[in-house]
Amino acid sequence: MKHRAEILSVGTEILLGNIVNTDAADIAAALAELGIDCYYQTVVGDNPARLRAAVELASSRADILITSGGLGPTTDDLTKQTIAEAFGKKLVFHPEEAEKIRRRMAEIGREMTPNNLRQAELPEGCTVFENSCGTAPGCAFEAGGTRVLMLPGPPSELRAMLRLSAVPYLRALSAEKLYSHNIMIFGMGESAVEYRLRELMDSLENPTLAPYAKTGEVRLRLTAKAESEAEAEALMAPVLEKVRAAVGDVIYGVDVPSLEAAAFALLKERGLTLCAAESCTGGLIAKRLTDLAGVSAVFKGGVVSYWSEVKAGVLGVPQALLDEYGAVSEPVARAMAEGARRLMGADFALSTTGVAGPDRDERGNEVGTVYVALAGPEGTLCRLARCGMERDRVRTVAAHHAFDMLLRRLRERE
Amino acid sequence: MKHRAEILSVGTEILLGNIVNTDAADIAAALAELGIDCYYQTVVGDNPARLRAAVELASSRADILITSGGLGPTTDDLTKQTIAEAFGKKLVFHPEEAEKIRRRMAEIGREMTPNNLRQAELPEGCTVFENSCGTAPGCAFEAGGTRVLMLPGPPSELRAMLRLSAVPYLRALSAEKLYSHNIMIFGMGESAVEYRLRELMDSLENPTLAPYAKTGEVRLRLTAKAESEAEAEALMAPVLEKVRAAVGDVIYGVDVPSLEAAAFALLKERGLTLCAAESCTGGLIAKRLTDLAGVSAVFKGGVVSYWSEVKAGVLGVPQALLDEYGAVSEPVARAMAEGARRLMGADFALSTTGVAGPDRDERGNEVGTVYVALAGPEGTLCRLARCGMERDRVRTVAAHHAFDMLLRRLRERE
Repeated sequence: MKHRAEILSVGTEILLGNIVNTDAADIAAALAELGIDCYYQTVVGDNPARLRAAVELASSRADILITSGGLGPTTDDLTKQTIAEAFGKKLVFHPEEAEKIRRRMAEIGREMTPNNLRQAELPEGCTVFENSCGTAPGCAFEAGGTRVLMLPGPPSELRAMLRLSAVPYLRALSAEKLYSHNIMIFGMGESAVEYRLRELMDSLENPTLAPYAKTGEVRLRLTAKAESEAEAEALMAPVLEKVRAAVGDVIYGVDVPSLEAAAFALLKERGLTLCAAESCTGGLIAKRLTDLAGVSAVFKGGVVSYWSEVKAGVLGVPQALLDEYGAVSEPVARAMAEGARRLMGADFALSTTGVAGPDRDERGNEVGTVYVALAGPEGTLCRLARCGMERDRVRTVAAHHAFDMLLRRLRERE
Repeated sequence: MKHRAEILSVGTEILLGNIVNTDAADIAAALAELGIDCYYQTVVGDNPARLRAAVELASSRADILITSGGLGPTTDDLTKQTIAEAFGKKLVFHPEEAEKIRRRMAEIGREMTPNNLRQAELPEGCTVFENSCGTAPGCAFEAGGTRVLMLPGPPSELRAMLRLSAVPYLRALSAEKLYSHNIMIFGMGESAVEYRLRELMDSLENPTLAPYAKTGEVRLRLTAKAESEAEAEALMAPVLEKVRAAVGDVIYGVDVPSLEAAAFALLKERGLTLCAAESCTGGLIAKRLTDLAGVSAVFKGGVVSYWSEVKAGVLGVPQALLDEYGAVSEPVARAMAEGARRLMGADFALSTTGVAGPDRDERGNEVGTVYVALAGPEGTLCRLARCGMERDRVRTVAAHHAFDMLLRRLRERE
C-alpha cells in the first residue's frame, strides 16, 4: 500500500510570522527520502476549532498525519488534547515520562514548574518518542486507519526526534523504494539550466529530473523508483551523463550538501589547510565552514577585517594599496588573502571585499560588487563577482564564489 | 469590514523539504503588523488540481488570498494559469513587463531564454507589482469578493515586493488598528517566564500578552487594539510595568530585534567600538553583527581562532595557558578577549571558547560548555555558559551570551 502523508504545524507564532517553519521543511525532507508522498502542508494556530478542522481535512486526504508543535508547557497549547479528541483518544498521564522531564529540567538547571508536568500526558495506547534535546516527549498512534505522529515544535528537538524515532517508525510502514541524487550547480541561473535541460526533463519518466533554485545556486534532483539500489543507479547513470554534457563544469558536486562541504571534503582528503580574511562577508565564510562538524581538521581560522585599519594592521595590507585603490578593489582582495595565508600559515586563504549594501561605498562601487581572492601555493587568483542587490544575498553569493574558487583550484591540482 | 487573509505557498520544492518556507513567515509578519487576521497557511505543489482545490478552500475561508511562488520561468510553474482560472481570469501578455524583464536580464548578465517571457503574462485587469530584485512581476486582482495577491517565490524578491507593493495595497483595504510591543528576554526559559506571567496573561483582554520562544530566547508580544496610538500606549504601559516587575532584568529590550541589535545601538550612541575573538562560535558573532547594516560604525572586526596556534600566534594567548588549562577554559577565554582588544584597538572585545559538538573535547569538556569573555576598559569578565547539546544551538546560544554580557556591561556604565 502506498502511503500519503500530510504535515500539520501548530503554532500561532508561525501564523504571526514570529518564527519560520523549519520543522515542516525537516519533516518534508524526511518524507521525501522515505519516498512517502506529501501533497499539502498546513499551518494552523492554537485554536481548537480550526485545529480540529485542519486535522479532519488532512486525515481525509492522507493516511499519515505528522504534527509539529503544541507539546510545550505553555497554557495556550491545547494541541495535544484537540488532536487526541479528534481521533477519539484520551490523554493519559505517564509517570515515567514525568520523571524524565524532572531529571531533564534539573540537568539544564531550569526551574521545574507545574505546567512542565502536563508534557507527560499522552494519547492512550501511543508509542512514546523520547525527546533527546528537550523535555516534551512526542508520540505516534493509530486510529481509524490514520497514523498520527506528534512531534515537538522547537527545531533542534524536532530534528532529533525525527531522526531517532519518527523516521524509523515511518520506514517500517513503507514498502516502495525511491533513490535519488542531487546534482549541485553554482554559476548558472535557474532559467538557463532549465532551458538547457527542458527537453531531457520532458522526455523522462523514470528517473525524473527537476530543478530547484536556492540563493545563487541550482539543485537538480534526479529520482528513480526501482526494486534495488543497483537498478536505480543503472537508470540514473545515463541521465547524469546527459546533464553533465548539457550544463558542463558548473556542476560542483553530486550529493554534496554545499560548496563549503565539497571544499572541506577535498581539503581533508588531501591534508590541506585553509583560512579566511573577510570584509563584506563579515564572518560568514568562517561561520559556514564551522557549521560543519569536524572542520577543525582543515580550517585554522580567519580574520574579519571590517575596518581598513584591521586590513592594514592585522592582515598587513599595505596602506598605499588601500589609499590608491580603496578597500573594495582587486589589489586589496589579493593582499588580504596573501596576508591571511602568511598570518595563519595555511595552505590556502580566501578573502572577500565588496559592497554588501544597502548603499554604495564612498568610491561609488555599486552594491553587490565583490572582489574574491584565493591565495595558495601556486599564487593568488582574484574574481570580480556581481552578487545581487540585497544585503543577505550579496553576502551569501560572495561566500559561494569564494568556496567555488577554492573548489575549482583544488580540482585543477588533481 | 474586518478582513481575513490566507497564505498559499506554491512549490514542490517546499513540499519536498528542499527549501524552508521563509516567504510565509514574511507575509505572516506583514499581515500581523497590518492587523489582518490569518488563520491558515497552506503549502501545495505545482499540481493544478490540488492547487485549485487549495485556492477554492482558502477563498471560502478568507477574503484575501496571498500566494507566493510559481511566477518563475520554469515549465512546471502552472501556478499563474491555475489561480487565474480559478477566479475566471485570462492571462494577458504585458509587452511593457516583457521589456522590463529583458532589461533586467541584460543588467545581471544572464542569458535571456524564451520562458523568461512567460513571466510577462498576468491575469487580466490586475494591478502589476514591480519586482525590484528579480524578473517576475507580481500582481493583485479582485474577483468575486476575494482579493488575490500573487507574489514571487525567491525570498529577496518576495520581501521587496511585499514592502514596496503588497503592504501598501493591503493597508489601503484595512481600517482596524493594532499596536504592539515586543518584550525581548534572554536568560530565562519559556516555561519559567510563562509561569511567572500566567495569571497576568489570563486576566488580560485588551491588550493581550503572549510568549514566543526562539532559540535560547523568549519574546513576549503585547498587543492592543485602539483608535489611536496614544490610547494603545496608555493601555499597554501598565502591563509592561507588571511584566518588568515579574521577570526582572532578563528583559534586554523592548522592540529591539535581537541582542546584537540592542548592543549595536548602545555602542553607536556612545561612540564605542567592538571586536571579537571566536573559537566555538566560529565567526557567528561577527556574522550576526555584520548582518546589521551600518555596523561598521562600531564593529572593527574579529579573529576566528579555530586552531590553538591562531589563538597563540594571532591573539597572543600565552602557550602556557593553553597547555595548562586547555583551549576550553576561563583563562584562555579571558586572554582571547584581551588579545583581540589589544590587536584591534577596540573599546570592547568579546570572546568564546567552548565545545560545539558533536563530541566532547579531548579534555572531557561536555558539549555545550562555553566560556564567554568580555574585555573592556574596566577589565575582563568571564561567564561559563551551558548552551545545550546540539551544535547549531550551542553556537547560537553562546553568541547570545556574548551579546548579553556586553549589553549588561554597557548598561552598568550608564
